[in-house]
Amino acid sequence: MIYPEEFQHLRDSFQELPGVGEKSAERYVYSIDSLEIDKVEEFAKNLLEFKNNIRKCSICGHITNKEVCSICSSDTRETSTICVVEDSKSVFMFEKTGKFNGVYHVLGGLISPVNEINPDDINISSLVDKRVLNGVKEIILALNPSMEGETTSLYIQKLLENTDIKISRLSYGIPMGADIEYLDPLTIIRAIDDRKFLS
Amino acid sequence: MIYPEEFQHLRDSFQELPGVGEKSAERYVYSIDSLEIDKVEEFAKNLLEFKNNIRKCSICGHITNKEVCSICSSDTRETSTICVVEDSKSVFMFEKTGKFNGVYHVLGGLISPVNEINPDDINISSLVDKRVLNGVKEIILALNPSMEGETTSLYIQKLLENTDIKISRLSYGIPMGADIEYLDPLTIIRAIDDRKFLS
Repeated sequence: MIYPEEFQHLRDSFQELPGVGEKSAERYVYSIDSLEIDKVEEFAKNLLEFKNNIRKCSICGHITNKEVCSICSSDTRETSTICVVEDSKSVFMFEKTGKFNGVYHVLGGLISPVNEINPDDINISSLVDKRVLNGVKEIILALNPSMEGETTSLYIQKLLENTDIKISRLSYGIPMGADIEYLDPLTIIRAIDDRKFLS
Repeated sequence: MIYPEEFQHLRDSFQELPGVGEKSAERYVYSIDSLEIDKVEEFAKNLLEFKNNIRKCSICGHITNKEVCSICSSDTRETSTICVVEDSKSVFMFEKTGKFNGVYHVLGGLISPVNEINPDDINISSLVDKRVLNGVKEIILALNPSMEGETTSLYIQKLLENTDIKISRLSYGIPMGADIEYLDPLTIIRAIDDRKFLS
C-alpha cells in the first residue's frame, strides 16, 4: 500500500465526480493538502448542506432549497407558458438569458427505450395531470435535438393533442457566431426546415 | 440570484480545485445532486480526515498519516541512498516502479529566484544538516529538468561538495515509446550528452 489510506479514500471520493479519473483525482487530493484547513472544512460543510437542503421543487421539479422554487413562487412570472426542459441545468441556462418570463417543468431525464427509460420514469405525468389544467396556454418543448429529446417531445405532444394548448419547440438552426462552412449537414437541413420567412 | 446559495457555495468550493472553472464546478455540483447521500457524507468525511490526519514525515517530508512515513520506518530500505524529489507526487511515482529501494527526501518545492523561493523556503537544510551525517553514500537528484530543478540540483551539489557522498541525477534522454522524429531539439541534445556507452 503506497498511499496513506486517507489519501486513497479522498481520491476515491473525487473519482465519483464526472470525468474525473485517477490522475485528476490525485491532483485534487494534492491541492487539498495545500488548501487552508478553513477552506477544507467549508468544502465539507458545503457538500453536506447542498445534499441535505437541496430538493426538487414540488411544482416544477427544479432544484431548490425550499418547498417551491423561487421561479414557481414568483408573482411576476407568467404561469400560462411552461418551458419543458430535461434538467435543472437547462433552467439555469434559460434564466441566464433573462428573456424568458414563463415557468419551467423539469423532466429529470428523457425517454430512452435503449436505456429502458420509460415515460413513467421521468416527471411527465405531473405536467399533464396537474399543471396543464391550470390555464396553461403554451408549452415550449426545450429538449436536446437528440433521438431521446425528440422521442420525449413527440410523446408530450401526443399526450396534449386533444387540448387547446399551443405546443412549440425551440427552433433548430445555425448557432450564433458559427461559420456555415463548418456546420454539419443535419444542422443545415434543420436550418432550412425551420427557416424564418422575412416577407 | 438564480442559483440556490447551497449550489453557489459548493460550486465555489469545487473551484478551489486546480484547473476547475465555473463550468466544471457546476457539473460537479449536479453530480453531487445525483450521488447517494452516503457517498456525499463519505466525501465530506474523507476531506476532513485527509486534512486532519495527513502530515509531513518528520524525517523525509513525504506525506503520511504517522509521525514517520512507512518508507522511512521500513527495515528493508537502504537508508544509504537518498533520492531527492520536489514533492510527494514524485515519491509515489518512484514507488510505483517498485525498483528503488532507497529512501527519499521531499523538498516541498524548488528554488526559484523569479518567484522569490529561496533555499530557506524549501526543505533543504534538514537534508544536509541531519540526514547526510548518518552514513549516506549516494544522493540521487530527481528533480524536473527545468530552470528551477537545475538551480536546486546545483545548489545541493555545492552544499555537499566537501563530503565524499556520491551525487547523481536522473539521466535525461528519449522517453520510452517516443518517436525521435517528434522530439524537441533540447531533448536530443541531452540524450547525446547523457549517452550510455555500450562498449
